Amino acid sequence: MGSTGLPDQENVSIKWLVSKTSQAWLDQAIAFPIEVLIDHAHCERKAAGAAVQLMFRYLCEPGLAEALSPLVREELEHFERVLALIKSRGRYLEPLKAPPYGAALAKQIRRTEPERMLDCFLVAGLIEARSHERMSLLASHSNDDELRKLYADLLASEARHFSLYWMLSEQRYERAVVVSRLEELAVEESTILSQLHPEPRMHS
Amino acid sequence: MGSTGLPDQENVSIKWLVSKTSQAWLDQAIAFPIEVLIDHAHCERKAAGAAVQLMFRYLCEPGLAEALSPLVREELEHFERVLALIKSRGRYLEPLKAPPYGAALAKQIRRTEPERMLDCFLVAGLIEARSHERMSLLASHSNDDELRKLYADLLASEARHFSLYWMLSEQRYERAVVVSRLEELAVEESTILSQLHPEPRMHS
Repeated sequence: MGSTGLPDQENVSIKWLVSKTSQAWLDQAIAFPIEVLIDHAHCERKAAGAAVQLMFRYLCEPGLAEALSPLVREELEHFERVLALIKSRGRYLEPLKAPPYGAALAKQIRRTEPERMLDCFLVAGLIEARSHERMSLLASHSNDDELRKLYADLLASEARHFSLYWMLSEQRYERAVVVSRLEELAVEESTILSQLHPEPRMHS
Repeated sequence: MGSTGLPDQENVSIKWLVSKTSQAWLDQAIAFPIEVLIDHAHCERKAAGAAVQLMFRYLCEPGLAEALSPLVREELEHFERVLALIKSRGRYLEPLKAPPYGAALAKQIRRTEPERMLDCFLVAGLIEARSHERMSLLASHSNDDELRKLYADLLASEARHFSLYWMLSEQRYERAVVVSRLEELAVEESTILSQLHPEPRMHS
């Protein structure tokens, strides 16, 4: 077991994160479970949308569409499962103002190729890694049985999705380039989260 | 059996089409099977992309996301299956210039709500209906066993997708309004296809 209380094999993605999620975030997320759940549904659909966008942008890139399409399907399966739980609690996909996280990370994506594709993969991978870490925390610490089970069921996929983006990067770029850029982006990712966003979100 | 050689139960979507596909299209499609197959892969991913776009645009519309998300997953499953066949024949997702069909139909979508949402459903439904009709023809008449089987396997979904868009429309608009607008759009759809597009496409 690692220091986060997770089996080591599940820490493959988390090990790239520069900082651990704060107790303040966990307290906030546990205090506002439905808001975080609705935000989670939005995160799943946005992750699906971002992967669709990547598939469309790099249509002729061999090996990409066939890797991303099953990932999109899995994100949507999770979206449907989370939405069903939201509905069972009398709520729906209320629009929630997004925290700065996604937009701030997107700004880090360089605008010219081949850097742009690499950054897209790594930013998407880092978001999956952070989701994995936070869902692991909720799977252990939420005081709601149904939510604990949901997060426990979904978190392994987040780690697999990180690995997929890592693999897509490694297949196309030198390993040293991938590692160095991932480390840079992970510092940014951690900086963005260093101030707790006041609205409870998966990435507040 | 109806006049197209299909069991009547599969004609639910096709009955809305104002004109039958011409022998000229069938001859063209049979003469250029790989081009039509690659275009088919593009059609599946575009259908998935369009449904994702609808989900995102009408996020708070009750009952919509949970209907469209499984449809997107199914379009992507088909995309993956068609792509695998394309790859098995040594080709990939080469970019193909789209025929005028999709853009011409999109122009028919009215710009203000609630008309816009209805038109989006009905245009998407008509495209599914036409795909169903043409895939039925290829399932019967292609001279390639593997392609005949592929189209036979996929065509029932196209009919179901038409039914889904029909149901989404009927749940939100008066039946007479839906029927009248679908009939108008079907006339446009038929007019767009009345001149065979010179490049072999699923909707040439």
